[in-house]
Amino acid sequence: MTQVAIIYFSGYGHTVKQAEAVATGAAGVNDVTVTTIRIPDTGDISDADWDALAAADAIIYGSPTYMGGAAWQFKKFADQTSKHWLAGTFKDKVAGGFTNSATVNGDKGSTINYFFTLSQQLGQIWIGTGLLPSNQKEHGPEHVNWTGGFAGALAISPADASPEEAPRSGDLETARLLGERIAAYASRTRLAA
Amino acid sequence: MTQVAIIYFSGYGHTVKQAEAVATGAAGVNDVTVTTIRIPDTGDISDADWDALAAADAIIYGSPTYMGGAAWQFKKFADQTSKHWLAGTFKDKVAGGFTNSATVNGDKGSTINYFFTLSQQLGQIWIGTGLLPSNQKEHGPEHVNWTGGFAGALAISPADASPEEAPRSGDLETARLLGERIAAYASRTRLAA
Amino acid sequence: MTQVAIIYFSGYGHTVKQAEAVATGAAGVNDVTVTTIRIPDTGDISDADWDALAAADAIIYGSPTYMGGAAWQFKKFADQTSKHWLAGTFKDKVAGGFTNSATVNGDKGSTINYFFTLSQQLGQIWIGTGLLPSNQKEHGPEHVNWTGGFAGALAISPADASPEEAPRSGDLETARLLGERIAAYASRTRLAA
Amino acid sequence: MTQVAIIYFSGYGHTVKQAEAVATGAAGVNDVTVTTIRIPDTGDISDADWDALAAADAIIYGSPTYMGGAAWQFKKFADQTSKHWLAGTFKDKVAGGFTNSATVNGDKGSTINYFFTLSQQLGQIWIGTGLLPSNQKEHGPEHVNWTGGFAGALAISPADASPEEAPRSGDLETARLLGERIAAYASRTRLAA
Repeated sequence: MTQVAIIYFSGYGHTVKQAEAVATGAAGVNDVTVTTIRIPDTGDISDADWDALAAADAIIYGSPTYMGGAAWQFKKFADQTSKHWLAGTFKDKVAGGFTNSATVNGDKGSTINYFFTLSQQLGQIWIGTGLLPSNQKEHGPEHVNWTGGFAGALAISPADASPEEAPRSGDLETARLLGERIAAYASRTRLAA
Repeated sequence: MTQVAIIYFSGYGHTVKQAEAVATGAAGVNDVTVTTIRIPDTGDISDADWDALAAADAIIYGSPTYMGGAAWQFKKFADQTSKHWLAGTFKDKVAGGFTNSATVNGDKGSTINYFFTLSQQLGQIWIGTGLLPSNQKEHGPEHVNWTGGFAGALAISPADASPEEAPRSGDLETARLLGERIAAYASRTRLAA
Repeated sequence: MTQVAIIYFSGYGHTVKQAEAVATGAAGVNDVTVTTIRIPDTGDISDADWDALAAADAIIYGSPTYMGGAAWQFKKFADQTSKHWLAGTFKDKVAGGFTNSATVNGDKGSTINYFFTLSQQLGQIWIGTGLLPSNQKEHGPEHVNWTGGFAGALAISPADASPEEAPRSGDLETARLLGERIAAYASRTRLAA
Repeated sequence: MTQVAIIYFSGYGHTVKQAEAVATGAAGVNDVTVTTIRIPDTGDISDADWDALAAADAIIYGSPTYMGGAAWQFKKFADQTSKHWLAGTFKDKVAGGFTNSATVNGDKGSTINYFFTLSQQLGQIWIGTGLLPSNQKEHGPEHVNWTGGFAGALAISPADASPEEAPRSGDLETARLLGERIAAYASRTRLAA
């Protein structure tokens, strides 16, 4: 079986929805098992979580964008991957990422770029959404990749929207498609490793 | 008089509208003169344009985002600033930037970051929008900074919208406010130089 | 008096040296008072520290580059600035930054870019080194800006070098000059505010 | 046969050396054919060049870093990939990149990040150096990845060094290893496609 791990932080529950959509997409691929790890408020994950990451064929990173970057709890996790950097544990694993924030644009790209930078130090192979954007006048938040991310899946949750209201359907479908693409790629290339 | 120069490229006319809004904002500040330079399709500007930039107190950079960055014509201009880098001509001038593209997010941040990187090599002082975002459920493209840029002014022009239709009112007002903020800052600090 | 605040994290003491050099540069400017805040291992600073930041004319951000970005303790501080973002407390303050890491290049630019992104959300005015690089064959770590940062001061501390050995003289002088430039600019423009 | 295409610009010949090292690395992998395209001073490549890119399993992007980004000639090429973006021609191809500049750090990361951003819009799969850095006191430009790039291969050519003198041996070996890694990955995964 191909193992896909999703590791993410969520402050208020909106990013949970996005992570679930990514997981749904990945789990729908044949011969794929998905492990989802929600980083706790302390930023520390368990030994079992680290083992799951070490065993994964693909790792998908997620966080809300807070003050222009991934939440500090995610960064605490990232700083702790340094031992895996030196040991090469994550090398050649597939990587991808997603982020959510209240503002339409609002530095989401900065968070995705950080995930990419981290993945490259760890020696991973990055795969984005591979989606064209929905960028015509008639398009809105109910359309796939209206928010318009290429390197990763982006979502908008307005500041006064509950996790039941946002991310909206287009962003969730974008997240699902990212999970599906990464899992399919990891599955297809694993046998070639 | 404080001199504000706006130098930008536009492929289809949408970024012209954004540049005009920036210029309107800057020109509305007391004791400010605005020079607007549209980079031609060749990417080469005239000697008089270079003189205007050298004389400016503030330079505002603009371009559509094409394939994840500023248009090549803008980059051709940027590459030619190398002589001003070595001579220090642009050092201590105020800098800012704006970009427009069809997709809601779509790597606009990459273009603004490039303008910033360029400005820092040239020794400039960067000033962004200083605006909070309009990021609640009721907000849309008619609200200031709904698109949500902090480091620079962002605009969305859907792929099938004419320059008469887009950028929309909120993005144009954001651009106007950026011009006003940069001009006011340049004017206020010029006397302190 | 112009108030310059330096807020930084250091894991092993090398970034302390860099912060001290920045402070020395800033303190050497007439009518400038410098407050240096070292973020503790918990990432939480005191109320007095927050008051010092709120009172400052310029805030200089510093952190080692760990796994491609600022240390999580710095990010924890940054996430807590969100209340100042909404209140506009940091708006119009001058900003700058510095980073140190073991590897010659090694994603230092990612950390400086994050400081910039944070500063822009907070509405600050960014000022970099304004230095040309020392980039000829004869140059080495004893020369100013040999490491070659424009948007911020960069330093290299080899993995097996103690804080007494690194950062080396050129990087420390670069840090000193950054502190001096930012303090002089903040002092000069404060009266114009 | 697996097709690897290298497309790059070089102004003074140093980046040619780096591109040749990448090509040597790629060509050393079994069943790999390498096509190298040097973008001319006009920024326009031939129809045969476009065909070679469309046929490639992997595309490696290269440029010197000029004024904080890829040379305008490279950007002109990149802007012209928009037709391949909409047609999906480059989707799922492996991607990677390299850059060279005179300054030790000097915004090389900005150029690599641009290549990455471009590749993601095109739907490609990004692979970096996968190398640990040489970051101890005894290390110098003759060591692999002393310059220290993860997302791509970085090289330093001092401003007064000829293409015979620089990039130096460590940077050229880093480039060779990048070419080898990308070609090996493209070969291994091609059969799984």
